[in-house]
Amino acid sequence: MINQTNVKYGKSRSAIRELFEYGKKRKAEIGEENVYDFSLGNPSVPAPAEVGEELTRIIKETDPVTLHGYTSAQGDFSVRKAIADDLNARHKTELHADCIYMTCGAAASLCITLNALLNEGDEVITFAPFFPEYAVFTANARGALKKVDCNRQTFQPDVEAFKRALSERTKAVIINSPNNPSGVVYSEQVIEELCAALNEHFEKTGKRVYIISDEPYRELVFDGIYVPFIMNYYPESIVCYSFSKSLSLPGERIGYIAVNSRIHAFADVYAAVCGAGRALGYVCAPNLFQQLVKRVLGKTSDMSVYRDNRDRLCAALTSYGYETVQPDGAFYLFVKALEEDASAFAERAKEYEILLVPSESFGVNGYVRISYCVSADTIERALPAFKALAESYK
Amino acid sequence: MINQTNVKYGKSRSAIRELFEYGKKRKAEIGEENVYDFSLGNPSVPAPAEVGEELTRIIKETDPVTLHGYTSAQGDFSVRKAIADDLNARHKTELHADCIYMTCGAAASLCITLNALLNEGDEVITFAPFFPEYAVFTANARGALKKVDCNRQTFQPDVEAFKRALSERTKAVIINSPNNPSGVVYSEQVIEELCAALNEHFEKTGKRVYIISDEPYRELVFDGIYVPFIMNYYPESIVCYSFSKSLSLPGERIGYIAVNSRIHAFADVYAAVCGAGRALGYVCAPNLFQQLVKRVLGKTSDMSVYRDNRDRLCAALTSYGYETVQPDGAFYLFVKALEEDASAFAERAKEYEILLVPSESFGVNGYVRISYCVSADTIERALPAFKALAESYK
Repeated sequence: MINQTNVKYGKSRSAIRELFEYGKKRKAEIGEENVYDFSLGNPSVPAPAEVGEELTRIIKETDPVTLHGYTSAQGDFSVRKAIADDLNARHKTELHADCIYMTCGAAASLCITLNALLNEGDEVITFAPFFPEYAVFTANARGALKKVDCNRQTFQPDVEAFKRALSERTKAVIINSPNNPSGVVYSEQVIEELCAALNEHFEKTGKRVYIISDEPYRELVFDGIYVPFIMNYYPESIVCYSFSKSLSLPGERIGYIAVNSRIHAFADVYAAVCGAGRALGYVCAPNLFQQLVKRVLGKTSDMSVYRDNRDRLCAALTSYGYETVQPDGAFYLFVKALEEDASAFAERAKEYEILLVPSESFGVNGYVRISYCVSADTIERALPAFKALAESYK
Repeated sequence: MINQTNVKYGKSRSAIRELFEYGKKRKAEIGEENVYDFSLGNPSVPAPAEVGEELTRIIKETDPVTLHGYTSAQGDFSVRKAIADDLNARHKTELHADCIYMTCGAAASLCITLNALLNEGDEVITFAPFFPEYAVFTANARGALKKVDCNRQTFQPDVEAFKRALSERTKAVIINSPNNPSGVVYSEQVIEELCAALNEHFEKTGKRVYIISDEPYRELVFDGIYVPFIMNYYPESIVCYSFSKSLSLPGERIGYIAVNSRIHAFADVYAAVCGAGRALGYVCAPNLFQQLVKRVLGKTSDMSVYRDNRDRLCAALTSYGYETVQPDGAFYLFVKALEEDASAFAERAKEYEILLVPSESFGVNGYVRISYCVSADTIERALPAFKALAESYK
């Protein structure tokens, strides 16, 4: 008997992937332009031109034995130094190269961090709606994911419910802001309240709870909104980052873990990150892409495309009678389903060739996620379908 | 309390890494050319010229959204198809694209495969000497590694000892041929005997035992020696491959898992591989390098350099009185220490500025590993030191 949990993970693709596969099939049947596929968070904006230019230059100018050789397991020192310096400049932190551990993207960052922290039976709290793979990653790290709802008006974490959920078994909290799937940025006030609750919990129980900030969308915010940087609010914090969205490189798997230099028992936590990376088979992050990100730090793809998409979609959908959560970042719109059962609503949307992810996957009922990382043209062509879908409920 | 197993893995670097770090420090003190560093298995031969050329061409010619986008979790279909076709052509197998799962290198391949197969408390057998990380990877997959010795003359697996080690808890066997650290290629006869033992075990107990073949050195063999391809001998087999050594790309993390198309309950095993990859945070293998390996399949770095190194080293060391296992592949030489305690011998070698890995790390006593993936010049300069070291024991 092989491992049945992993058989199940392999057979039951996530709802998002299922929908994506359905979309591929449907496009083959009726033509790509006739399916309005809002299923996947795959950046539609190309990587900035510097990415291709720098890759070519690095390949041309670097000795291949060095360029394609192993880096240290934590990542190339100069890359980690550059990232620490960049974070310090932007967030007034005091990180050094040995706070940074280079990874194969955000999923790897999360898995390694969870494995570093958790013991059998530990609990991890997150706020619904949340990225569904958190449950899989936590289970693999021998823990259990416990969800706390967000406020249904603002989609900010419900701090009172959070306090009630804290227990002696709580080891970590995953926050994700800008949020997938709501697009909401957690406010400074809420962050401060969460941290205060954890400090109180520590005083009462002596249990340190870590905040893991999953922030692949950090740069993907609109209208100059302020995204609190967790390390400035709470010492027991670890940032899981990926360049997938900011540089439109999701398939290349490059990101990092930043361990707060002020975390309690820093040396142990950083060692546990290195140890977990080792035990999970992450020998080092791809060297060529380590060298790349060092050279393009601070650059991003053209984010204005996403902002324009958001504005166009929000305005149109609202005019058709949809209710949406106002998104300040990421490239997701969380829309109230027009019937109680979001899955039934998403099924009806399919009849209009619109592919939407029902919110059950994200731990809440009654919504659908629209990934608007698509071309402006797709949105324009989809609007009449959204209108017809709304009218079918009148 | 965070996870102490991972703290330990992070703090106690492998003996190989320790020695490598010592070497870096020593080189800074007395000059790079005065330290004879045989510690690391980092290919010294550059990637074939096609690698740089194809990378540059792919970047120039491919739409960046596609090139750097997610592939399916198993890997790009055309890449998997090309690999299956290539294996079929070379080994007369009947693999198809959906037997292949692209990974971030051999360590990832092994971790994913072990997680796919093992349940809590399962045992995995391997043959000493073996790559030390097998123990870490197996433990992380909830299993226990059990070692069986090789014959001390031939360094072929001891089949009788293997039969005695099989138990109701045995889930898998890891074989590694050409072997790190001995350089030995397991003979066809031994492979046949191992498979017969497993068939017998199945008949007796009803327990299927999988063979996991870890073969990053598959192409790295000399004198046209035959390396049996496990799928042709045993249906319950999974191949873990990496392009790290054959293409000199260890830092780029690209490899694959091939599940035998004739394996029992193929769909479940392949699903478990996909599920384990998902649970460990491996979203997909780096897309650019997936595209690359498709275009350079069958190409290798210039292996003649390693053969020349082997010949020069073997001849010289033998003439100084060292006993070595005759290596048919990989780029390692396993040499009998000149005193009982291999660590003490390796310490004495350091006095001669020679860095050798003592064999305790590999699960046997009394040997040292020489990684001869170094320049021919390093070998020439090291020979007088090897000679002096031998003389110090006379």
